[in-house]
Amino acid sequence: MSGSTDDIETLIDLMAKLPGLGPRSARRAVLHLIRKRSLLLSPLSDMMSRVAVSARECLNCGNIGTSDICDICESEKRATGELCVVEDVADLWAMERSGVFKGRYHVLGGTLSALDAVGPEELRIPRLLDRVVSEEITEVILALNATVDGQTTAHYIADQLQGRVKLTSLAQGVPIGGELDYLDDGTITAALRARKEL
Amino acid sequence: MSGSTDDIETLIDLMAKLPGLGPRSARRAVLHLIRKRSLLLSPLSDMMSRVAVSARECLNCGNIGTSDICDICESEKRATGELCVVEDVADLWAMERSGVFKGRYHVLGGTLSALDAVGPEELRIPRLLDRVVSEEITEVILALNATVDGQTTAHYIADQLQGRVKLTSLAQGVPIGGELDYLDDGTITAALRARKEL
Repeated sequence: MSGSTDDIETLIDLMAKLPGLGPRSARRAVLHLIRKRSLLLSPLSDMMSRVAVSARECLNCGNIGTSDICDICESEKRATGELCVVEDVADLWAMERSGVFKGRYHVLGGTLSALDAVGPEELRIPRLLDRVVSEEITEVILALNATVDGQTTAHYIADQLQGRVKLTSLAQGVPIGGELDYLDDGTITAALRARKEL
Repeated sequence: MSGSTDDIETLIDLMAKLPGLGPRSARRAVLHLIRKRSLLLSPLSDMMSRVAVSARECLNCGNIGTSDICDICESEKRATGELCVVEDVADLWAMERSGVFKGRYHVLGGTLSALDAVGPEELRIPRLLDRVVSEEITEVILALNATVDGQTTAHYIADQLQGRVKLTSLAQGVPIGGELDYLDDGTITAALRARKEL
């Protein structure tokens, strides 16, 4: 029906499954790829197959990288004692782009949700409580999204850690209902600088 | 800076070069790919490498497929005598989705443009004039975009073919300044049915 043949059709269908691409934009992307075969299509295919083999979650913090322990957890330049808790790897990357936080991260992998039956065990919360003790953490920054589920999760974690470490949360700049990954770097910087104790 | 490592960073940079994806949506797409490694990332990589080897332009009409002569040109079910001229492969695919045209196509590969120094020789126009004779074409449908360059190109081709074949153009339904690939199937069908002789 589309005038293209099987392999190309299959490629379009696969591309259309990417977030942010629909059937039409997938077709345009595939035509663009075919026109830029040596500059884009082949390098992209090679890099995808490398990443398919090498990508893994950091056993310590949940960040995605190419080794069992990610670069941030391994780096000796990162401040020990400060732990920034985020929902998702995309949020960690957004924090890193702002460049203002020098400690380490902990990626929960989602938020608590009664509706979806996501409890603390489904997230990386037990591991967080372990790390606070084993890494002698003095401050936990709860950088969760300003959504209902994000704030519920922040309160739950705060309850668990109350009195054991200094607890802070991102302050000004995070709009109600907003998500970290969509914020500009300046807003993230301002919010981190003005963090307030719970 | 982004917290990911080299291969993943490179993959994000490559994905960001696709039309319709920017740096942020490329990061989200790559995280999605890594999470759906076996369902999406590996199949996509394999299919890209197959298409990088097999995709080629049809020597006859300029459509993109996996053989030297495309399925449409080879098909004996397509009406001979009718030729639909489009600017781009995406436009051909858009026409095919409407399912109403049963003839063959000719992809120009762009439009005439004095500013960009695109003359008839840079497009597939000489080949079109050859085909009209060798394939005994009786009607040429000029399905070019309703842009200034598209219409200039249509007039140029009409001049070349005047008196030798029936010349028609897509009629109602194509909005001023609109591009074929973005039209819905019903509009394309209506425009093809109501095509008018030049």
